[in-house]
Amino acid sequence: MKIAFIGMGTMGAPMALNLLKAGYDVTVHNRTRAKEVPVTKQGAKRAATPREAALKADIIITCVSDTPDVEAIILGEDGVIHGARRNSIVVDMSTVSPTATCAIAEALGRKGIKMLDAPVSGGSEGAQKGTLAIMAGGDETAFEKAEPVLQAMGTTIMHIGPIGSGQMTKAINQIVIAGVYQSVAEGMALGLKAGLDMEKVIKVVGGGAAGSWVMDNRADFMVKNHYPLGFKVQLHRKDLTIALNAAREMGVPLPVAAYVEQIENGLIVRGHGDEDVSAVARCIREASGID
Amino acid sequence: MKIAFIGMGTMGAPMALNLLKAGYDVTVHNRTRAKEVPVTKQGAKRAATPREAALKADIIITCVSDTPDVEAIILGEDGVIHGARRNSIVVDMSTVSPTATCAIAEALGRKGIKMLDAPVSGGSEGAQKGTLAIMAGGDETAFEKAEPVLQAMGTTIMHIGPIGSGQMTKAINQIVIAGVYQSVAEGMALGLKAGLDMEKVIKVVGGGAAGSWVMDNRADFMVKNHYPLGFKVQLHRKDLTIALNAAREMGVPLPVAAYVEQIENGLIVRGHGDEDVSAVARCIREASGID
Repeated sequence: MKIAFIGMGTMGAPMALNLLKAGYDVTVHNRTRAKEVPVTKQGAKRAATPREAALKADIIITCVSDTPDVEAIILGEDGVIHGARRNSIVVDMSTVSPTATCAIAEALGRKGIKMLDAPVSGGSEGAQKGTLAIMAGGDETAFEKAEPVLQAMGTTIMHIGPIGSGQMTKAINQIVIAGVYQSVAEGMALGLKAGLDMEKVIKVVGGGAAGSWVMDNRADFMVKNHYPLGFKVQLHRKDLTIALNAAREMGVPLPVAAYVEQIENGLIVRGHGDEDVSAVARCIREASGID
Repeated sequence: MKIAFIGMGTMGAPMALNLLKAGYDVTVHNRTRAKEVPVTKQGAKRAATPREAALKADIIITCVSDTPDVEAIILGEDGVIHGARRNSIVVDMSTVSPTATCAIAEALGRKGIKMLDAPVSGGSEGAQKGTLAIMAGGDETAFEKAEPVLQAMGTTIMHIGPIGSGQMTKAINQIVIAGVYQSVAEGMALGLKAGLDMEKVIKVVGGGAAGSWVMDNRADFMVKNHYPLGFKVQLHRKDLTIALNAAREMGVPLPVAAYVEQIENGLIVRGHGDEDVSAVARCIREASGID
């Protein structure tokens, strides 16, 4: 099976490497062409444009930063749509607007090209280790054809429903994450101000109904006021904005997620956009006069 | 070792039963005296007042609803303070104000009586099974003396620090819980409105960085819009109000916890106070027009 992989960023490059390791024939493309080089050293071919990358591919994977990038790569002048064969499958693994996803799928469908939306969670570490969670939407037959390819990149692969379902599930993921980080940050701030032994607090509170992945893995960052990666504030904010726009279109008010988006906006303005999302704790620490 | 146990409520009665099962000599008291009867059938003695219960006890446990109840039981006219022996230990397992706790401990201390604050989490189920998490504050020697008794009621027993630390830790627990329930509710509302297969969404989202005890155990209640116990909204609101008052006194602003307190206030007014805390999802469901 021939695979095209467009987008050699922090996520895309290690994901393409895992496909090569699994024995797939992979052709890569990146807007900044130099980023294609490391992957070609592991056996990938290069293509000058998304169109060219798509020409012989059975599956065309896209993994880029935002909605306009996906639209340009797939529907633009030298886009995938002008090269891809009938019955090939475009798998967009970026996190983008569910509405835009459906529009792209429709345009591809008119040319007999199938599409899955398959955003991931698990960060750059998950991309490298091939342990991503992949949330897919789209035609079930297309999913079954793409599934072995997805399995080379992730461990939890789930087909949620029709096209857009993957992006909507990712939106839910980012909404929940927003509030959980903020809640843990609020709890940690109170404990710090009270001068408690926070290691003990995290252990006992994290062991019960207040427990979460964030408490187990990020509360300690908040206590130390040091936020190594992780997952960048500016990337989460980008995803959260997509999620809030989708929720607005659908008529679902999300007060806590919207509040956390504002906190993250403030962090980015102040130069903390490259820190881990746990940096939301900075705001309550500062508002509480915790050094 | 002789134990007095004051407060035969939903939590206190099964906790006292676990002490009897562990072989302790237990004397119980409850304001509504009839509630003492079931425990006496398992071997507990009865006392007419908190003072009388405390007379021969080495450890006097209190487990009641709110701060004024603890103050009355310990410092009131027929209170524990008028009966307890020097060097006996009062262990307050209620969830109450950390500030009030310190004041009570000081009054007891002037009479040579020690005090630990040891609020619990794990609900009525944990009380029955003896699997509570117990967060203790107070003198370390007193804690070591009381620890075997606490072990008869819980599985995770932790001494956090000086008097008030247990209550402060419990406050952190309830603050974190508030935001996590709300966050999961926001995510579930978006998924429901989008018509996703929520069983799949909960599985894939709960397996990553958005995962939590609430996602694993309560998201399903929110999807079904059915909120069996669990932990009552009105009890969580009571604890959250204590936590927010403590945070206010200490100068720690907690915007999300305060927001959720308001949501819970609304639920109580509308007759949902006896439902599980996951009923916070009602508000977003309704605001989004989800049936």
